[in-house]
Amino acid sequence: MGYGLYTVENVSKHSLYIVKVRKVILTTKTKYQEVQIIELEEYGRALILDGYIQSAEADEFIYHESLVHPVMVTHPNPSKVLIVGGGEGATLREVLKHSCVKEAVMVDIDGELVEFARKYLDFMHQGAFYDPRAKIVIDDGKRYVAKCGSSIFDVVIIDLTDPYSSEIAKSLYTKEFYAEVKRILKSNGIMVTQAGNSFFYSDVYLYVLNNIKSVFPIVREYWQWVPSFGYACNFIIGSLKYDPAAVSEDRVNGILRERGVKTKIYSGAHHVSLLKGPVIYGRSVA
Amino acid sequence: MGYGLYTVENVSKHSLYIVKVRKVILTTKTKYQEVQIIELEEYGRALILDGYIQSAEADEFIYHESLVHPVMVTHPNPSKVLIVGGGEGATLREVLKHSCVKEAVMVDIDGELVEFARKYLDFMHQGAFYDPRAKIVIDDGKRYVAKCGSSIFDVVIIDLTDPYSSEIAKSLYTKEFYAEVKRILKSNGIMVTQAGNSFFYSDVYLYVLNNIKSVFPIVREYWQWVPSFGYACNFIIGSLKYDPAAVSEDRVNGILRERGVKTKIYSGAHHVSLLKGPVIYGRSVA
Amino acid sequence: MGYGLYTVENVSKHSLYIVKVRKVILTTKTKYQEVQIIELEEYGRALILDGYIQSAEADEFIYHESLVHPVMVTHPNPSKVLIVGGGEGATLREVLKHSCVKEAVMVDIDGELVEFARKYLDFMHQGAFYDPRAKIVIDDGKRYVAKCGSSIFDVVIIDLTDPYSSEIAKSLYTKEFYAEVKRILKSNGIMVTQAGNSFFYSDVYLYVLNNIKSVFPIVREYWQWVPSFGYACNFIIGSLKYDPAAVSEDRVNGILRERGVKTKIYSGAHHVSLLKGPVIYGRSVA
Amino acid sequence: MGYGLYTVENVSKHSLYIVKVRKVILTTKTKYQEVQIIELEEYGRALILDGYIQSAEADEFIYHESLVHPVMVTHPNPSKVLIVGGGEGATLREVLKHSCVKEAVMVDIDGELVEFARKYLDFMHQGAFYDPRAKIVIDDGKRYVAKCGSSIFDVVIIDLTDPYSSEIAKSLYTKEFYAEVKRILKSNGIMVTQAGNSFFYSDVYLYVLNNIKSVFPIVREYWQWVPSFGYACNFIIGSLKYDPAAVSEDRVNGILRERGVKTKIYSGAHHVSLLKGPVIYGRSVA
Repeated sequence: MGYGLYTVENVSKHSLYIVKVRKVILTTKTKYQEVQIIELEEYGRALILDGYIQSAEADEFIYHESLVHPVMVTHPNPSKVLIVGGGEGATLREVLKHSCVKEAVMVDIDGELVEFARKYLDFMHQGAFYDPRAKIVIDDGKRYVAKCGSSIFDVVIIDLTDPYSSEIAKSLYTKEFYAEVKRILKSNGIMVTQAGNSFFYSDVYLYVLNNIKSVFPIVREYWQWVPSFGYACNFIIGSLKYDPAAVSEDRVNGILRERGVKTKIYSGAHHVSLLKGPVIYGRSVA
Repeated sequence: MGYGLYTVENVSKHSLYIVKVRKVILTTKTKYQEVQIIELEEYGRALILDGYIQSAEADEFIYHESLVHPVMVTHPNPSKVLIVGGGEGATLREVLKHSCVKEAVMVDIDGELVEFARKYLDFMHQGAFYDPRAKIVIDDGKRYVAKCGSSIFDVVIIDLTDPYSSEIAKSLYTKEFYAEVKRILKSNGIMVTQAGNSFFYSDVYLYVLNNIKSVFPIVREYWQWVPSFGYACNFIIGSLKYDPAAVSEDRVNGILRERGVKTKIYSGAHHVSLLKGPVIYGRSVA
Repeated sequence: MGYGLYTVENVSKHSLYIVKVRKVILTTKTKYQEVQIIELEEYGRALILDGYIQSAEADEFIYHESLVHPVMVTHPNPSKVLIVGGGEGATLREVLKHSCVKEAVMVDIDGELVEFARKYLDFMHQGAFYDPRAKIVIDDGKRYVAKCGSSIFDVVIIDLTDPYSSEIAKSLYTKEFYAEVKRILKSNGIMVTQAGNSFFYSDVYLYVLNNIKSVFPIVREYWQWVPSFGYACNFIIGSLKYDPAAVSEDRVNGILRERGVKTKIYSGAHHVSLLKGPVIYGRSVA
Repeated sequence: MGYGLYTVENVSKHSLYIVKVRKVILTTKTKYQEVQIIELEEYGRALILDGYIQSAEADEFIYHESLVHPVMVTHPNPSKVLIVGGGEGATLREVLKHSCVKEAVMVDIDGELVEFARKYLDFMHQGAFYDPRAKIVIDDGKRYVAKCGSSIFDVVIIDLTDPYSSEIAKSLYTKEFYAEVKRILKSNGIMVTQAGNSFFYSDVYLYVLNNIKSVFPIVREYWQWVPSFGYACNFIIGSLKYDPAAVSEDRVNGILRERGVKTKIYSGAHHVSLLKGPVIYGRSVA
């Protein structure tokens, strides 16, 4: 560590990941959270919310492709998609890559954050905000879902800050919320949420997992290392009909071709790797 | 970060992973390297060489099972196994789980380190040092291999410090060394090496990968997140006959059963997940 | 910051001082506190209590001479001296340099700590523990003072951990305790306490200062930068008769000569410098 | 250390001072140096050059008053004053407090830095830049002095980055430069320079001290703890006629009154304290 500015992130209760800052674009507080847009050495421009790196230029594709495509590909014809959170627009960008999507609604509570993303993070949204199929709603995700009619969406993607890192996201990891998500999904619908990390925070992770299990008949979990997070990020799928683990490598590749989806990391092989990879709950020693 | 002792590890050129220390068991220098045995918060007792965590109680199984079993299972009948490095004895422990193994030779340059492992790290070796099939040789791996007759081993496992982190391991990542490894392998032999990290150190990683490709007809790569490393650890397999990617999930499970191998994370599904997972070379931005 | 072990110390609520560790001699918990004896780069062997560096080989003389000699020199004939705390023996060492001292009682609550100091920190005590004039008592300072007869001591030196850093010392910074100290002092007695730092912790500092002012007619304060603390350490003198600020440079030098006191930094000029230097309470911005 | 942005400063070769960042105002590179203007927790707005905190809202007065007033008060009638460096304008501000000053020339090499100070650091200059007695010159200090006629100035104040921390300042700590400073001083002139830290960097410090001693007949040194530097900052005075150590407390107070100088910390007592305080060269252990 030489002199200079660094960003410090809690990886776990007793460990930290520290990255050198190249340039600070923005440090502010919105009504909901601390927002920093910072150029990091090695990672490029990054969005940091309440001190946690959410997305960085160098590796955001790892996170966003792993979050979005497994459920999108598992559903045979996702037409209406809801994204809860995802203010930087990269999740929306990945969803819209699927040509079958007719409407993608992104609901983020933090309108200021979305404006910052438009202004400073165009490599994230890459124009997705301006796609005619995109609908951006500034609202509390819980309230939006509550007001929503039943059986509306094919896919719901929940892209929030970690369940243990911030207050604003907590109510969106509850059994009640997942029941509401089920209600607004069509009968063959599917949802996914990012779920923090199951190794360091197994209690919270298992709480979320069990909440999803209590609502959805088919539940699958996977994780993927995201370098700028300092850990493998966990994801949990809740599905009403289709099983992501039953989608073969070839079928994934065929669907991506049909729907014209170009990715950097996601593929049939990656899909299989994710769904077959063991997820570890907690540390084996205290 | 509260007050106290911390261990600082370079994850990449511009980022650090910092872990709280609970207790320091040993800090010393052997003839070859700085050795620390430290009890870390969340990770338990850990072996640190030249400042890099090599193995920690809470997650060493993730590393050692991912290193050892894919090649062991790919080979239909590994009887003679050579381990280069691996001084803490955990790689040896995993190898000896395979009942078909008749002899496992572990060659580590650092006799003092092996003594420390015997004394302070019994959860690592778990008695493997005293298994009648184990042969511990204190010698330079390169010299040992050079003196070795041809076509001796079924499997060679190279378990060294990272190719970019220390001087002592460097000559064991060269084309010349891999040619020697090939020479001492039987004609259907297989080898694996840990290879640091391909995301942060793609230049060195690709150098090692290409060295292996220039010697072995079948080359496979995979990575696995190891929490205490702060990153996913890469592994590269060089094989003369058998393709690890062609071993099915069921076959892996069958072999583990036949050979009486009990693991914490490795399984047929994990094997497939590892071999199908995409490895990322370098960051996409400068 | 390269890889390795570091000790992290809170300088203030929002700032840290981090020093590279060369070797760890001891990390343990006594009944009263966490004790670490560590060899630091640049500072040499150091005693760390509850995460705060108390004394380091390279600069302990700055602290101990600044603590002890101003009061010792202000009193014309200190014969009986009480040290509360000071377990590493360096305060005792400085007191015993004054040939007029007939008895120096050191009361430290932590007998294990005193044993560690005897064993590992001989450069601190330099044999002071074995001086026939020294009396080492393992007891709670407050209880010892309470049991003590009145008008016994010429000088009382209070050498504890900071008033804001640990629980065990807190009751020894109260008005009640200072009244007890006054009681056991002779009518021309004088006391001094280290008092943490008035810049970063002005509230606690002023609390201590006012407690002393409420008990002693003559109160003087001074501070001295101690490199390994990361800040200037404050000291407060409470005196019943003699004013340290009235002792001239020449008189200090004369007394040191008469009593055969050899120092590294303390002198008449230093005495004047300390007593005339302005102490700053708190930061001028929030 | 919680999550967030931190500024890391090297205090010595093996130790760091880390301060939490509240807000980043500016991070840029001028032609000469990296410039950061940052709001720090506890310290307020700070100017950081090449990673070293130069001045912070909460404690800049400690540094600037200690630098400027001892020489200004030692000279009986300073009328023309030269400041080399001091781009943030606070040294100029302190000089202009002396009503006897007719002209204060400030020469800083970095015009961009001076503009940033005007724009973002008005609490530093407090309007000094706009005082009719002030003359701001953007030039290399060495070149400006070389072009300057002889026997022009009463006082020269050298306010640069540390002799060991940056390249741009190095030639302004040489014997040759001090000879030039002497040439442009009147025959009773006096100069002062900040000189980094003599405890951690005694080699460089003694080099600077000896350079000044080889040119000036009267040399005095002192140091003052500056919290945001993480250490006591050393200063060295070179004088042609007047001895700062011979100016009494009362005389200092009288001069401050006569010249209408209001300060926060500097006074007759502080003057005496500084000039009598021992400066420590280097650590007593390796």
